[in-house]
Amino acid sequence: MKNYDAAQTRSVTWDGERLFFLDQTRLPVDVIQEEQLDSEQVWDSIKKLKVRGAPAIGIAGAYGLVLGVRDHLDASEQEFLAKVRSQAAYLDSSRPTAVNLSWALKRMVARAEQTAVNGTQVIYQALKAEAVLIHEEDKLLCRGMGEHGLPLIREGMGILTHCNAGALATSELGTATAPMYLAHEQGIAFRVYADETRPLLQGARLTSWELQQAGIDVTLISDNMAASMMAEGLIDMVIVGTDRVAANGDVANKIGTMGVAILADYFGIPFYVACPSSTIDLATASGDLIEIEERGADEITFFGARRTGPEGIKVRNPAFDVTPNRLVTGLITEKGIIQAPYGENLKRIFS
Amino acid sequence: MKNYDAAQTRSVTWDGERLFFLDQTRLPVDVIQEEQLDSEQVWDSIKKLKVRGAPAIGIAGAYGLVLGVRDHLDASEQEFLAKVRSQAAYLDSSRPTAVNLSWALKRMVARAEQTAVNGTQVIYQALKAEAVLIHEEDKLLCRGMGEHGLPLIREGMGILTHCNAGALATSELGTATAPMYLAHEQGIAFRVYADETRPLLQGARLTSWELQQAGIDVTLISDNMAASMMAEGLIDMVIVGTDRVAANGDVANKIGTMGVAILADYFGIPFYVACPSSTIDLATASGDLIEIEERGADEITFFGARRTGPEGIKVRNPAFDVTPNRLVTGLITEKGIIQAPYGENLKRIFS
Repeated sequence: MKNYDAAQTRSVTWDGERLFFLDQTRLPVDVIQEEQLDSEQVWDSIKKLKVRGAPAIGIAGAYGLVLGVRDHLDASEQEFLAKVRSQAAYLDSSRPTAVNLSWALKRMVARAEQTAVNGTQVIYQALKAEAVLIHEEDKLLCRGMGEHGLPLIREGMGILTHCNAGALATSELGTATAPMYLAHEQGIAFRVYADETRPLLQGARLTSWELQQAGIDVTLISDNMAASMMAEGLIDMVIVGTDRVAANGDVANKIGTMGVAILADYFGIPFYVACPSSTIDLATASGDLIEIEERGADEITFFGARRTGPEGIKVRNPAFDVTPNRLVTGLITEKGIIQAPYGENLKRIFS
Repeated sequence: MKNYDAAQTRSVTWDGERLFFLDQTRLPVDVIQEEQLDSEQVWDSIKKLKVRGAPAIGIAGAYGLVLGVRDHLDASEQEFLAKVRSQAAYLDSSRPTAVNLSWALKRMVARAEQTAVNGTQVIYQALKAEAVLIHEEDKLLCRGMGEHGLPLIREGMGILTHCNAGALATSELGTATAPMYLAHEQGIAFRVYADETRPLLQGARLTSWELQQAGIDVTLISDNMAASMMAEGLIDMVIVGTDRVAANGDVANKIGTMGVAILADYFGIPFYVACPSSTIDLATASGDLIEIEERGADEITFFGARRTGPEGIKVRNPAFDVTPNRLVTGLITEKGIIQAPYGENLKRIFS
């Protein structure tokens, strides 16, 4: 990939024994790989969004579980398995909306249970292997989405994205960005418009940074400029990521995504959602059943140390919204692009 | 008005000789009335948005012209009139989009020209009187909009507004907020949702502050949460202000307004624009002819002293957008609520 050092944008690194997260709260000013020493630190890093993005927190949670049980190898096998389960529940409580975290942790617990009767050391090695597998599989998922989304990107196109569904949100390549990285690798010239994505500015701090690192033509805008860019004819396609896709194709993603989808609909612009199969939740019938995390008021009334809203003001701060399936042109998955009717097609391909 | 000290939110104060602006760049943390000593300072204050809002900068420009010519009373009448014209052109260059500034300055120049042949002192006194008249007329316009908009506000309603078209943007009562202040005065209970309005956060810093001062139930959200609030059924009406309404009813207003209008259309929510007649520009046929100010990149990549976008990133920063007339339910003016067909109705009522 042109001028692109993928290691620089690696969100989660595991060297076989030690776990590092790129502290995304410090980007784009400081690029710091912070070692995670125990599961409490991992829980805290997920909660504070040092590591964020649905696929990345699944990977982070899996490695976090390894850290959370490694001091208990002297316990009995039953005690060790109980610890695996309690640590999984604990780590799962760090963020409620993304399905990948609980998906990865359930998979880790199942692996431990399957490996039992061979001693704690064997279970522990199996957990490490499973976490690495989850990590490696995510790289393949991203590449798969990239390959299926690549034909959507034509020379000269303008693509709007929201939040960060990039390399920083995953293992590598990202979800929404995977087609962009592959198109860029092939020398296709296109423009990306990155919504800054209030309140936490993942688009400004993360997406525009990682695309810039890769040498992709990226322009940063505030969220409320998306309609103007569309009206100017600069946007030919929207690609976003997702934290959870319900069985009917409703899409939970970062707050503001539904607004972008409505604007795209108004201007007749295709709206695609990149989602690995790990993000598709067939157990949730529709988007209105997805729990939406409401975050603290200070994210709205402060910016860093600076107060920008009045003292004592009421605030709403939902972290996600749900885009109704009828606004989604297609779901870019590692198995191809899924289109309506979503209920039927998702069930057929992913159950 | 309940618990409301209007003086605290007064944007422009003239005591007969001295001019003060409430420095809106320091709100909501510091409430500072800054004396304006000359027209250069007024130009700079308008440019830096210390005073902002279309009606308020018209008033500010009129008083600024008084300051800009008062040291030239010893000149000949022709020299003095030339100074009036050049100072008007200079002050008019501080911001291009709002029609009120050039409208007020043209009115000041015309008054000077009509008053000529009576000596510079007489012209100067006429200019002072005209500026005060523009100021007083704006108060009446706001009250007129408030009275015509008042019947739209029903008990228990949720109203979304964008940017600040409040008391701070005008002489008093505001434009979009005028019906809210009058409804609150009458004891009608309603909720207001204020978009924070990136990049300069007029909604967070100004609207939520001034409504809070007045004791109105106001909730602050980031711009990209408006769709969620609508989807939750919390919004029954949108009222925004405007910087310029074209002859066909297209509405130029703070960036993000068009997006809100599209969302309101999608959810079937009425979208009203409060505009005094001074903001209606029959000389501009349609919105695409309105010049849109593009502001500096630092507003997007920095927040106060803190860098939030990467170094060297490309940025777009249009300060306004144009909402097409078909998305506007009605224009709340001091002469009543104007509805489509706008071209015909605006011409009939305002030409």
